[in-house]
Amino acid sequence: MEFKVYMLDVYTNFIYPAHINIKNGLIKDVTPIVTDKDQETDFEGILLPGFIDSHIHIESSMLSPSQFARIAVSHGTTSVIADPHEIANVCGVKGVELMIENANSTPFDFYFTAPSCVPATSFETSGGELSLREIETLFQKDEIIALGEMMNFPGVINEDIDVLNKLDLAKSYQKPIDGHSPLLSGEDLEKYISQGIYTDHECSTFDEAIEKKKLGMKIMVREGSSAKNMEALFDYNKRINFLNSNDLFEDISLEEFEDVFEKPIFDFLVSDDKNPQDLLKGHLNTTLKKAQDLGIDMIEAIKMVTLNPALYYGLNSGAITNGKKANFVLVDSLENLNVKKTFINGNIVYDEGNVLFEAKKFPVKNTFKLDDKKAHDFEIYYDKGKSAEVNVIKINNGEIVTDKIKSNLKVENNIIKADLINDILKISVVERYGSNTMSNAFIKGFNLKNAAIGSSVSHDSHNIIVVGTSSELMADTTNLIAKNQGGLAIVYLDDDGSKKKEILKLPIAGLMTNENCFNVSENLEKLHNLSKKLGSTLDSPFMTLSFISLLVIPSLKLSNKGLFDVNEFSFVDVVNN
Amino acid sequence: MEFKVYMLDVYTNFIYPAHINIKNGLIKDVTPIVTDKDQETDFEGILLPGFIDSHIHIESSMLSPSQFARIAVSHGTTSVIADPHEIANVCGVKGVELMIENANSTPFDFYFTAPSCVPATSFETSGGELSLREIETLFQKDEIIALGEMMNFPGVINEDIDVLNKLDLAKSYQKPIDGHSPLLSGEDLEKYISQGIYTDHECSTFDEAIEKKKLGMKIMVREGSSAKNMEALFDYNKRINFLNSNDLFEDISLEEFEDVFEKPIFDFLVSDDKNPQDLLKGHLNTTLKKAQDLGIDMIEAIKMVTLNPALYYGLNSGAITNGKKANFVLVDSLENLNVKKTFINGNIVYDEGNVLFEAKKFPVKNTFKLDDKKAHDFEIYYDKGKSAEVNVIKINNGEIVTDKIKSNLKVENNIIKADLINDILKISVVERYGSNTMSNAFIKGFNLKNAAIGSSVSHDSHNIIVVGTSSELMADTTNLIAKNQGGLAIVYLDDDGSKKKEILKLPIAGLMTNENCFNVSENLEKLHNLSKKLGSTLDSPFMTLSFISLLVIPSLKLSNKGLFDVNEFSFVDVVNN
Repeated sequence: MEFKVYMLDVYTNFIYPAHINIKNGLIKDVTPIVTDKDQETDFEGILLPGFIDSHIHIESSMLSPSQFARIAVSHGTTSVIADPHEIANVCGVKGVELMIENANSTPFDFYFTAPSCVPATSFETSGGELSLREIETLFQKDEIIALGEMMNFPGVINEDIDVLNKLDLAKSYQKPIDGHSPLLSGEDLEKYISQGIYTDHECSTFDEAIEKKKLGMKIMVREGSSAKNMEALFDYNKRINFLNSNDLFEDISLEEFEDVFEKPIFDFLVSDDKNPQDLLKGHLNTTLKKAQDLGIDMIEAIKMVTLNPALYYGLNSGAITNGKKANFVLVDSLENLNVKKTFINGNIVYDEGNVLFEAKKFPVKNTFKLDDKKAHDFEIYYDKGKSAEVNVIKINNGEIVTDKIKSNLKVENNIIKADLINDILKISVVERYGSNTMSNAFIKGFNLKNAAIGSSVSHDSHNIIVVGTSSELMADTTNLIAKNQGGLAIVYLDDDGSKKKEILKLPIAGLMTNENCFNVSENLEKLHNLSKKLGSTLDSPFMTLSFISLLVIPSLKLSNKGLFDVNEFSFVDVVNN
Repeated sequence: MEFKVYMLDVYTNFIYPAHINIKNGLIKDVTPIVTDKDQETDFEGILLPGFIDSHIHIESSMLSPSQFARIAVSHGTTSVIADPHEIANVCGVKGVELMIENANSTPFDFYFTAPSCVPATSFETSGGELSLREIETLFQKDEIIALGEMMNFPGVINEDIDVLNKLDLAKSYQKPIDGHSPLLSGEDLEKYISQGIYTDHECSTFDEAIEKKKLGMKIMVREGSSAKNMEALFDYNKRINFLNSNDLFEDISLEEFEDVFEKPIFDFLVSDDKNPQDLLKGHLNTTLKKAQDLGIDMIEAIKMVTLNPALYYGLNSGAITNGKKANFVLVDSLENLNVKKTFINGNIVYDEGNVLFEAKKFPVKNTFKLDDKKAHDFEIYYDKGKSAEVNVIKINNGEIVTDKIKSNLKVENNIIKADLINDILKISVVERYGSNTMSNAFIKGFNLKNAAIGSSVSHDSHNIIVVGTSSELMADTTNLIAKNQGGLAIVYLDDDGSKKKEILKLPIAGLMTNENCFNVSENLEKLHNLSKKLGSTLDSPFMTLSFISLLVIPSLKLSNKGLFDVNEFSFVDVVNN
């Protein structure tokens, strides 16, 4: 196959017409055309290397890899480096293998990392574990190109032997090690890096990023659904301050600095997490446009999702040149960056609104092993008086950090009652892998009326988490999710008092579905609207819910083993005596 | 020690005033100052990271490392990665060890590579050899940071086992391997690179450099005394052609491309070879100014001699940031780039015209082992007739490539006579390491009258090479060089017929001297003027002479073992029967 097209040469930053000769999915040769003034080309637009997202958790899209690929190619993405951290917490190695299997049956350029921190903590019960032996099993697969983000930075700094063993194993397999070191600085950061961890996607300030960069790290600028760091890292006000606050030498012109601002000084653009609704709107293409709006030169930004990650991870792509994979995206112009066509391994997979491949079905196996729950399972019993002072999880809209507050609640028949007037509702985490443990607590911030909402997506162990106004509705919601082998669910009483149910089914490990992105985001939209109708003041209640069980984020969290004070890093009783 | 100064931050491309705190030769911390508008600083100018020449043969300067350092710091150079290829050909490992010893006693940031191709060919006799065992001895030294340029690219491509062993050894010691692959292209180039050779300093055209770059090589843009490639590699006419010859999309402005031209797309700036006269004028500082004249953004160019080489070779320098060596150069401005002060490991070593350290004497040991030569040793005998057709080396001013021509010469008393009228002179290479072999031939292009010029610098084996109008003068010149344990010499008859001698002594391995750069270039100048006075039409007769014995450059060359036809890659007789 041969194209005649205007293409971006990321090595020279130059756009020119060329003949591109493709054989067996690889670029055989690229011959620039320098002839008559008006070039007739096969396509209207500019051919770019396909976009590479070098850090993403596909599970966050709630889509199977195959369905993820169908929406991703419509945005010009041809490759992702995915960390299957969530499914590994549910199904261990088997889950990762199923992800790879589904990915391999899809005409998309998938790469995976071996999750490094499964389970995330010892204070919760996960479905899967990845010890050294399992990680080595994964390293032996070609599809696994790195060790996934090493979130346990205290373990690295304190030279926890299990952690160091994983790092050494990665080195012995010559797999790069991805980092995760939010706000780490100074000597601790130097120690973390000295263990061979050379990337970070958690930078939230310019100073943090530049310190890591100067210590040799590759900085992944993150722009996803839950975390957006691009403005902070591309905001050069800091540097403009210098201009305003100092006399610079006359021979250094302001223009020189404006030119400086156009050059990103960090390395990759990544998404980390993309929810279905955001994914419908765009992926790296919208990130690139935002970078341009922030004053970054578009060609330099494009390198952050093409040549830079390809060189770092040793992918045979990221540039339109001899020998590399024929992964391309055709855009109308660098200014508008509208994706017209996408090519992977030389085949067209997206053409003007049409995705040209079907999703391969991800095999669905029940990952839920728990008894039918009864209302009384969700009660908190107390026999020491008529009222009790309890510790309450206080959530705030759009934040994953919670506060720890106290509240005095009535006790009736030895049961501590929720305080609906003051929005003190009940919350429970129900273990779903067979141990039949669960724990109950109180939470403020959902503002629900006559309803319970629950989810089998709850970081990082993904047990069932449910919040509600009554134990009965909570039990119904839990059982509804279990019956459907996973999902996001709402059970509520409508105006005439009759009980209604809504669920977005996530039968793949309780995390993902074989449905396409359109249906999933439509369903999610429906649930969001319903939860608002039921009084919730949260923009994305399920996202908020899914982080209440993440024990590494302050302040007060809940696992199936109990209420957890993150600042103390230990369990705490619901009731203060 | 603490500075308050305007500094270049090569990570942000930004220049700002900062406090720089230095401890034990390292930068302890850098604190930008954002305060009142007019900053009082300790120095007038801009502090840059010290310049790093990542590929140079110090021997070409004819200076000891210590004397080289004294002139280099006056140009802002603080570090070099030197390939002691020449002295290794003379003295083997011992020579390299002496270079390191002299370097270590000098307050300069020296690094060395282990020469990979000693001897250069089997068609000549060198004084030293570096087999696998000797190279491993060198790899065990901290000062040796890479395997020197692998000039034997045919050996790499044809998988010569000795060559592959050297490459594997370098990999096992985790030393990068420097390349040398002039005009290598296509599959041969891919094979060369696939052996783990990731740099090249031999690119002479833009196309050659970009092909190597696209295959993953780091491109060293060379601007030295014998080879100057910067114009070819920074000349963007090629790309401007595209602009003129094609309609580009309206949303891509011409400005965008002008901006493109300012960004160098190659990696390092190196000198490779610097003769004393050029070194007196400048080093990387003049190269940077030339880059600027070619339209390259100065800050981007500076990275090619600071951050880029430091990151690639793992040097703890190349940027003004915490933990790195306090190697700086203070320039008046980026536009003029006049070097005012130079700091190495936190100490000032050059200050406004004064070098603040003395050169350490390089121990001089006689490397010459040959008998006194007589005139008849330089005769070519022939008993088959009164005339003979001979193969003549034809040289051209400023070129190291020679031509092979034929000439008919008179024979008297069985001796073939030089033809002075037609500038067919005699040339000889006299082995100087004890085997007492030598070979004689004829050469055209020197145009000498009543004179002989000789040198103990003759690539790569550095035997004595001498050209002259009479055997007697050639013998005198050879003996003069041997008596002085090395040098560049001229013996001639002046107008009254009396014999005169001039020599620039090179007692260090016959290659270098302990004299300073000023004296050496003054002496060299004197010899150049004398050779012109004696009829030579060559700009640098000794440089030209030194390459006549380099058997890997076409067409006809001479070694101590005989006349060598490079195109046939075999010896050829002087006389055609």
